[in-house]
Amino acid sequence: MTTKSFGVTSPKGFKAAGGTCGIKVSGKPDLTLIVSDVPAAAAGMYTTSKMPSAPVVIGRRHLRSGTLRAVIVNSGNANASTGKPGEHDALMMCKRVSVALGCDLRKVIPSSTGIIGRPLPMEKITAGIDDLVGKLAVGAEADEAAARGIMTTDLVPKSDGKTVKIGKETVTIAGISKGSGMIAPNMATMLAFVTTDVAITPGLLKRALKVATGASFNRISVDQHTSPSDTVVTMASGLAGNLKITKTGKDFDTFTQALTDVCQSLAYQIVKDGEGATKVFRVRVVNAKSPKDADKIGRAVVDSPLVKCAIHGGDPNWGRVTTAAGYAGAAIRPEKMSLSIGLPTAPNQAVLVFKNGEPTKLTAAQQTKLQEAMKAKEMLFVLDIGLGSTTVDWLGCDLSREYIRINADYTT
Amino acid sequence: MTTKSFGVTSPKGFKAAGGTCGIKVSGKPDLTLIVSDVPAAAAGMYTTSKMPSAPVVIGRRHLRSGTLRAVIVNSGNANASTGKPGEHDALMMCKRVSVALGCDLRKVIPSSTGIIGRPLPMEKITAGIDDLVGKLAVGAEADEAAARGIMTTDLVPKSDGKTVKIGKETVTIAGISKGSGMIAPNMATMLAFVTTDVAITPGLLKRALKVATGASFNRISVDQHTSPSDTVVTMASGLAGNLKITKTGKDFDTFTQALTDVCQSLAYQIVKDGEGATKVFRVRVVNAKSPKDADKIGRAVVDSPLVKCAIHGGDPNWGRVTTAAGYAGAAIRPEKMSLSIGLPTAPNQAVLVFKNGEPTKLTAAQQTKLQEAMKAKEMLFVLDIGLGSTTVDWLGCDLSREYIRINADYTT
Repeated sequence: MTTKSFGVTSPKGFKAAGGTCGIKVSGKPDLTLIVSDVPAAAAGMYTTSKMPSAPVVIGRRHLRSGTLRAVIVNSGNANASTGKPGEHDALMMCKRVSVALGCDLRKVIPSSTGIIGRPLPMEKITAGIDDLVGKLAVGAEADEAAARGIMTTDLVPKSDGKTVKIGKETVTIAGISKGSGMIAPNMATMLAFVTTDVAITPGLLKRALKVATGASFNRISVDQHTSPSDTVVTMASGLAGNLKITKTGKDFDTFTQALTDVCQSLAYQIVKDGEGATKVFRVRVVNAKSPKDADKIGRAVVDSPLVKCAIHGGDPNWGRVTTAAGYAGAAIRPEKMSLSIGLPTAPNQAVLVFKNGEPTKLTAAQQTKLQEAMKAKEMLFVLDIGLGSTTVDWLGCDLSREYIRINADYTT
Repeated sequence: MTTKSFGVTSPKGFKAAGGTCGIKVSGKPDLTLIVSDVPAAAAGMYTTSKMPSAPVVIGRRHLRSGTLRAVIVNSGNANASTGKPGEHDALMMCKRVSVALGCDLRKVIPSSTGIIGRPLPMEKITAGIDDLVGKLAVGAEADEAAARGIMTTDLVPKSDGKTVKIGKETVTIAGISKGSGMIAPNMATMLAFVTTDVAITPGLLKRALKVATGASFNRISVDQHTSPSDTVVTMASGLAGNLKITKTGKDFDTFTQALTDVCQSLAYQIVKDGEGATKVFRVRVVNAKSPKDADKIGRAVVDSPLVKCAIHGGDPNWGRVTTAAGYAGAAIRPEKMSLSIGLPTAPNQAVLVFKNGEPTKLTAAQQTKLQEAMKAKEMLFVLDIGLGSTTVDWLGCDLSREYIRINADYTT
């Protein structure tokens, strides 16, 4: 999205550190600490799972005050399905950080991702936290360490950001994300932490985050398994010097759009790095009867293992797309529906394969174009429902043998 | 389920034939005809898809009268997403059969499975129908040909049946099924045709079929992609000589249970032959708050690609099961939930891995037992929700590289 490199310490007032405390057998990084120099306005969006992980339970509670000083994240162990002892461990993570920073433990939120149903190795984690506190820094090195400390099966660290003018001041928004399996709409195992120096009230920050998440993390799917750990948290230090955003209007809209851009980039990176993924596909549902219907259809298509396999094989078996729409539970009338397949870079040149409930007759040139689109690394389905005016974009990835390898051998 | 072999011509009054008319490039069988000598009471259950295939549209219409003479089924082409021309083709299939049998065309229902979005090769099909009419027969050979004519990616033909006493008479129920991909609850690409010689009213036959389907085909999943073609049709010739079942009560219950047994066997065979499947797993949801909740939970677990991969790898990563329950959208309280893993043959010896929201501590012996269960060809999860009294069983299969191979290369 940008040529300049952004990380969580790009906005004014943030330090970060990432490192290895020994949770993972592999010896890879597994701990990240992000700290705001000042009490930051804060907001979070969490998993819809009815079995939320312990850090999600604690994090929700700590976010109630609307301000935070730090986020402490471990990877390799989700601290999920661990009951009351798990909640105690999550609190102890916050406490260790709060003592070092000299703040209330409720100004710290914990976050964890990894294997479910195992107690956290707290000795390793507390030693790791002490180590990270001593390493807190600003700059590219700290940013990358922070992005790496939250990875699980991710192949690459994920970060992005942008600057935007609010009044006369330049505001910076930057974030990191992780997640390549257990990725479903409503945020399956994905974590994202976004920092910004905008001055804004916690209430409006929450509102902006809700919009941004709805148009990004909530419209991606790798494998539809909603995780108990999904977390998007944002902290706003207020140090950009802009006139504080205290109401909706132009400044709020500008900030919300920029936050959405950053979240969409972080979400895209998650899908692109989906477990075993070799391709990304975009499902553009247009003219759906309602936003709810549009999302049901988009989700059904990106979740379908048959669609995902067809894309993996580069096979224009588009009946799998129309039939996924057919079982989505949304308003559909086949005779009103059309489907085009093409490249995201040239949506207007997509090939119309299905119209008014019937297959179209393709010329040889169109056949070739269709084959090319299906074999591209990034492709686009435009599914016109013809019953209304709602348009949404969903992102998914293909299903490969590598996904099976990764997920048949993950634990023990 | 039985040592005696059953097929669609086992009940009195039925003939069948299966053969090859050239729809499939592979040259494998692709056409099946099942005929009742007399007008048979008939009932059907169809896909919930909002883009039903043409034969589903026609079949629903023809079933309204409650009696049928024949079912004509082709494989290799689903006649789906084909619009009005597709409906015309489906009607022409019925007509060809009806002329040969000397009955109204509305006494025949069409059924098709295979690739979506292509016109049927009607010349081949009409010639094939003429051929099958001449081959109609009773017995094992005809039964097997009928079972083979409806196969797509199925590796083995599927049939079963049983006899049951209704009053003093022996009633026979037998059926065939197909389906190994696009199998989701509510009957994704699966077809099943059940014949019986019971004397029963069409209304009660429909009622019995609804119960049987609900406890069998609607509780299996291979890949959650609901097909536009799902069909379960049953014909009852009435030739067993039993006192006709005209009301609910003992005879109705006896018949319904036997029909359920047959459907469960046919459904089990579909899962076992799931595309790429190497293992079958059973999810027993017990003490759910309501039947709806129990089904939501069972379905979420059997549909989860992560659960399916863990089973493929023989990995006791049970957190994937509890978290699937967590996102099912059903009433759940982690502190009330428990999970045991074992063998379907010895449910009482299953190992308790999760209780009251926390992992249990396993002895070395229990660890071994757990590993053994996970590596077995058939395994059982008992998920006790602890909030009510509903129990249901769902069946699923593992997700393997072979599934990807089959579905990345299916069409063109």
